[in-house]
Amino acid sequence: MYTPKSAAQNTSWLIEESDLSADTTAAHETRFTLANGYRSLRGESPFCQPRFPGAFYAGLFDKSEAAVTELVNCPNPLPFRVYVDYEEALVGKKGALEYHRALDMEQGLVSTGLVYEAETGSRLRMQSDRFVSRSDRHRWAERWVFQAENFSRRILLKIAIDGAVLNNRQHPLDAVQHIKVTDRGRLDLEVAAGIFLESQTRDQGMRVCEGALLLCPETEPALKLLVLRPLAERVEAVYELTLSEGRPVVLYRLGYGMVRPQAGSEQGHDIRSALAAFAADGYEAELGAHRKVMQRFWNEADIQIEGDERAQRAIRFNLFHLSSCADPGTGRVSIGAKGLHGEGYKGHVFWDTETFMLPFFIFTQPETARSLLSYRYHTLAGARENARRGGHRGARFPWESADTGVEVTPPWGVDYAGHLVRIWTGELEVHINADITYAVLKYLQVSGDRQFLIEEGLQILLETSQFWASFVQWNEAKQRYEIRNVIGPDEFHEHVDNNTYTNYLAAWALRKVRDLVHQLEKEDPALLRDILSRSQVTREELESWKEVADKLYIPQDGELLEQFEGYFKLKDIPITEWDKNGMPLWPKGLDVRRLNETQLIKQPDVVMLFAMIGEEFPLEQKIKNYEYYERRTMHKSSLSPSMYAMVGLGLGKHDHAYEYFIKAAETDIVDNQGNTAHGLHVANAGGTWQSAVFGFGGLSLDKDGVLRIEPWLPPQWKRLRYRFFWRGISVAVDVVPGIFTVQAQELLVFRSGDKEYSTGKDGITVPRLG
Amino acid sequence: MYTPKSAAQNTSWLIEESDLSADTTAAHETRFTLANGYRSLRGESPFCQPRFPGAFYAGLFDKSEAAVTELVNCPNPLPFRVYVDYEEALVGKKGALEYHRALDMEQGLVSTGLVYEAETGSRLRMQSDRFVSRSDRHRWAERWVFQAENFSRRILLKIAIDGAVLNNRQHPLDAVQHIKVTDRGRLDLEVAAGIFLESQTRDQGMRVCEGALLLCPETEPALKLLVLRPLAERVEAVYELTLSEGRPVVLYRLGYGMVRPQAGSEQGHDIRSALAAFAADGYEAELGAHRKVMQRFWNEADIQIEGDERAQRAIRFNLFHLSSCADPGTGRVSIGAKGLHGEGYKGHVFWDTETFMLPFFIFTQPETARSLLSYRYHTLAGARENARRGGHRGARFPWESADTGVEVTPPWGVDYAGHLVRIWTGELEVHINADITYAVLKYLQVSGDRQFLIEEGLQILLETSQFWASFVQWNEAKQRYEIRNVIGPDEFHEHVDNNTYTNYLAAWALRKVRDLVHQLEKEDPALLRDILSRSQVTREELESWKEVADKLYIPQDGELLEQFEGYFKLKDIPITEWDKNGMPLWPKGLDVRRLNETQLIKQPDVVMLFAMIGEEFPLEQKIKNYEYYERRTMHKSSLSPSMYAMVGLGLGKHDHAYEYFIKAAETDIVDNQGNTAHGLHVANAGGTWQSAVFGFGGLSLDKDGVLRIEPWLPPQWKRLRYRFFWRGISVAVDVVPGIFTVQAQELLVFRSGDKEYSTGKDGITVPRLG
Repeated sequence: MYTPKSAAQNTSWLIEESDLSADTTAAHETRFTLANGYRSLRGESPFCQPRFPGAFYAGLFDKSEAAVTELVNCPNPLPFRVYVDYEEALVGKKGALEYHRALDMEQGLVSTGLVYEAETGSRLRMQSDRFVSRSDRHRWAERWVFQAENFSRRILLKIAIDGAVLNNRQHPLDAVQHIKVTDRGRLDLEVAAGIFLESQTRDQGMRVCEGALLLCPETEPALKLLVLRPLAERVEAVYELTLSEGRPVVLYRLGYGMVRPQAGSEQGHDIRSALAAFAADGYEAELGAHRKVMQRFWNEADIQIEGDERAQRAIRFNLFHLSSCADPGTGRVSIGAKGLHGEGYKGHVFWDTETFMLPFFIFTQPETARSLLSYRYHTLAGARENARRGGHRGARFPWESADTGVEVTPPWGVDYAGHLVRIWTGELEVHINADITYAVLKYLQVSGDRQFLIEEGLQILLETSQFWASFVQWNEAKQRYEIRNVIGPDEFHEHVDNNTYTNYLAAWALRKVRDLVHQLEKEDPALLRDILSRSQVTREELESWKEVADKLYIPQDGELLEQFEGYFKLKDIPITEWDKNGMPLWPKGLDVRRLNETQLIKQPDVVMLFAMIGEEFPLEQKIKNYEYYERRTMHKSSLSPSMYAMVGLGLGKHDHAYEYFIKAAETDIVDNQGNTAHGLHVANAGGTWQSAVFGFGGLSLDKDGVLRIEPWLPPQWKRLRYRFFWRGISVAVDVVPGIFTVQAQELLVFRSGDKEYSTGKDGITVPRLG
Repeated sequence: MYTPKSAAQNTSWLIEESDLSADTTAAHETRFTLANGYRSLRGESPFCQPRFPGAFYAGLFDKSEAAVTELVNCPNPLPFRVYVDYEEALVGKKGALEYHRALDMEQGLVSTGLVYEAETGSRLRMQSDRFVSRSDRHRWAERWVFQAENFSRRILLKIAIDGAVLNNRQHPLDAVQHIKVTDRGRLDLEVAAGIFLESQTRDQGMRVCEGALLLCPETEPALKLLVLRPLAERVEAVYELTLSEGRPVVLYRLGYGMVRPQAGSEQGHDIRSALAAFAADGYEAELGAHRKVMQRFWNEADIQIEGDERAQRAIRFNLFHLSSCADPGTGRVSIGAKGLHGEGYKGHVFWDTETFMLPFFIFTQPETARSLLSYRYHTLAGARENARRGGHRGARFPWESADTGVEVTPPWGVDYAGHLVRIWTGELEVHINADITYAVLKYLQVSGDRQFLIEEGLQILLETSQFWASFVQWNEAKQRYEIRNVIGPDEFHEHVDNNTYTNYLAAWALRKVRDLVHQLEKEDPALLRDILSRSQVTREELESWKEVADKLYIPQDGELLEQFEGYFKLKDIPITEWDKNGMPLWPKGLDVRRLNETQLIKQPDVVMLFAMIGEEFPLEQKIKNYEYYERRTMHKSSLSPSMYAMVGLGLGKHDHAYEYFIKAAETDIVDNQGNTAHGLHVANAGGTWQSAVFGFGGLSLDKDGVLRIEPWLPPQWKRLRYRFFWRGISVAVDVVPGIFTVQAQELLVFRSGDKEYSTGKDGITVPRLG
């Protein structure tokens, strides 16, 4: 009945576990999270006590007594319990004989199977399939099959909605209640009785309502409701299900959830109608609609690797979860650093989204990319407030962003010893402003979405540039502009002056934005005037950005870019030993509390420029800098290995590329950062896509904006296929040893090596270099 | 710092565990329960997630949606958590290096020690000692010692009072909320801030209030309150405690709890004063007072066995827990079948108290015995109501009793299959009325408490007798009284007529009560008239009891008493095989669903008569019946082995006595009934005492009321010592091979063999028979 591991169809679509000890539940809850960009349900098993239960709605934040506003962990509609002869069927108990869970990434379905033998000897085989619909984003459902192996008797089933939820429940100090339960009880539908629970957030009174019901399609009423009751901040219903030995019985649990502004509407009533409609449509119909969305997603975004199932499964794991975090419909929410997969980083949005995740969406899901950038447009008011508070003009996007765009990085943390630790990133990690500019420009370049440029994009570009122009400081002695006291991508070094990454990207942004304005002026001067007046950027101000960009100081020693002013004077202790996975070990004798006095870095900083705007630098300079910084990078961020893989491949450095790639791709599969339990490393998922497509797939843009494709395959890869959109045209790349084929919906020009090619529906095959 | 197992002083006082897997927590929670007859706290470990948390107040019942009223599981004041470098120190995790718990029965103290190493490498050694005061019964406390082995830094401590409690939490259908939280928060005391939680029961609005605070006696403020907050139906406080490597730091947690009738008093205020007073007295003073009570208890009640530490520890385990269930002060509560140790049997009081537990109290704690009997006096109104409902006169005490004396046996149960199962005991197991009569008479005989007789005892005796006289039915054909359609102690057979145990004990009771009245009439006729008028028993009615008693039918075949009419005609399949512990195996080929058609019995029935009123039967008859029924007893009640041990020893049957005794004594130590998790087999604890003192110790009463002492020691016992009170005189018996010594505060006459002895302060040594 349930699929044992060995019999699974194509295991490269499956993430599996069968741990009878229930020891790693918390990480599995993250891996088996199902989400649709609107809501998410962490992957708790119906046969385990949940470790970190989690139900989130994208963009639903609350502060209450917390240090900063955080993504609310909402009432949990998932509890489901099976009782065999009054014994609760749980993994970890003696009676659990076989257990198996699988995330089917192709279908977006989590299957859970258990064979449980009660102390009475009654043996029950169960399987559930769960999905969170990507079609109707309020709906989620489960299909259950129960089969009594050696008895004919009732079993009991309990479903519940649990409103006794806290954020940071496990934390001794930070546990916070963001939700008040306002009502819970019974929903009377024609088809069956259901349960509902209404609640609201404490600060803004946003109303969250969940409903669920259990249905049995059998004509004989095998399922009978015994008890439906509120128990404190929880509602539960207990059913008996009568089984006959050997005969499988199917059940469906249908769930519906929604968030509404305060208002006085009767949510219970709305949930009732919604569940009635869901019941009328039926499980299979919704699953079909959900599958269609999944199928379309994979058609557009799948990366196929032949000859390396490990890599194949890992890349899909990242794409699946990345896609589950975004909802193209809203334009009001973005993706937090841990996705919708846990409470980590409080659901806040960092540069992670624009720098690491967005390229994936830009190239495979342009509508979603636009929606994610719209979130920044809609939080411009907060970004302006951040700039104003610092005494600057324009918009400074927050290092950590929640619902308003006002900076929500906690200014203080507390270490083990109880010492307050000043967190400077919120004030100093200003490069995010240029990262957003970069993302907007990249989106415009790839999509050609002029409407977004006019309606929202240019506004973002102008105000972020305005900030840079007011943020730089003129050094009269050295006759140059400087940006002092910042943190670059490498967080081992704080309070540095003239961080090359920041300064270079800011200058690049100022130039690009000015150029874009000039071009628009030629095309439609009236429109431009209109946009400028809205943004309060004067013509003179705009023209001044050229000088700022030209005179913004970039510290360097010949071709070698200096990470920040004075970096080369720091103690130089290059890495000399690596672990068996190729990851660097701390150099011997190093005092890790004084990393800031060394040239060791946490993650790429200068090298990030090559990852983002590599076309601006000559090859020789990139190689020289890459080699220098790679020897000094400790990869202490999950965002590091994928970038080194990708940039290295572009420079012909194939030695570590595969190791870096696998390290990144498997981050949450093997939990190599040790914190998968708290959410997914979703920026790393984006980085993994980049290292596959930009790295091995060799996709890049030349400085003149023409596509370039220079693939390289690791020896064990027999074939690599990927797809992307270029200005609305779907393009497919198919790489095998020696040659690669590019096929496009319409005429497409690209370069490879020193040649330029045209292709179309029939495709073109090109010899592969190197 | 904390005592490792091997170094414990006298292990016969200790019940220990050191299971790092936390697998058996629920049974340990029962074994480590601390109670004082007023309140109890199940023995949850601060280093384990509780399995069945439990906090009870004796006599606090509530029904709400439950099938019958049940002992309320109250808000739990025990949660305590330690965080080392933000990591929760729990057994079952990798960091738990050594774990040890010990119940010190001598002091009434539970010690828990853990060495925990966090992932950061910080290693912390902790120990707590907990007691629930037997001096001030509202108070409980813990002394904590923390020692950082290899770090100097703060740790975090969290205390809480949890009001999110349910009864039958684990049961799919029966979970019930009996408690509503009405307030919770901060208590400001001069010495420190504390937490409190007020709640009330749902039916009667009885108010339960808990308060607690954490104190550090260090002058340097090593302890600092960081957060104190309500979180839904819970209040918690988090502290930091600053440790220096190697230096132990001591803390105290002081707790106070109380139940009050509804009223409008400010409980928070009262709890504040009470905690302030407790803090002023200090932990050590209260512990001293508690120890004095414990010391007095052991002085009066300890049984000492030399040469057999296993038996020594086991007997003490039973005495300790038995004593923890009773509070001599009230007269309003009795002891449920699972003590105050769990939710088993819903806290209801059965014949267990009078028949099995009470002899222990009568002989060692006469004040407590009186208080337990007073509970029956105070529930006479309910007992009258039970009789009235059945169309009878007098008082019929309920088979299951809660707060009013009205029958609370659930009339229906539900089996696994969901079938309703009729529970007949509430209507049919009427022998409890005679069991109570027996207990009152035994108490009067041993204590000589004439005041109780006059104020309460006689009232019970008269009304229970009145019930019997109106309950018996006259069989005109056979010219005899009969009692039809009952259940005797052996519950394998229901709906039987003329159960010998019931009929014999009822007749015995009627005769004894009538004799007592006649005797009282001689001593104080006016007083008797007064009592009779209160009880509505007429003189004629009283005199008629002789005929009822004389003509009440006792089925028998010669000397062999028939368990009930027709029993001897049932299929006779004697037991022929025993397991390695000497316990019977089901005879081969038996259909266990049709036990009622066989002579196999669950537990002693006829033999119980010899256990209770053995002086009424000739020795030869007892031997014959014992042998007959022992071969047919399956010991499926925990109450069975101890009775067979005790009765057998009185009949010179030594073969199985020790096996039976150990089986009984270790019931909850080894969990041989499989349900220790749900509470203690406290009647079995009383039976264990009886088999030690009445059995091996050979204490009995001849028919003329003179004490008899006929000890017998198993070969491995080098010495047996026990004490008891006889009419207020403290008596000590000291048995060694060959002889025994009896010492008494005042002149005491007793018999042994065919001789009569007198003893006093100097004692007398008597040769031992057999």
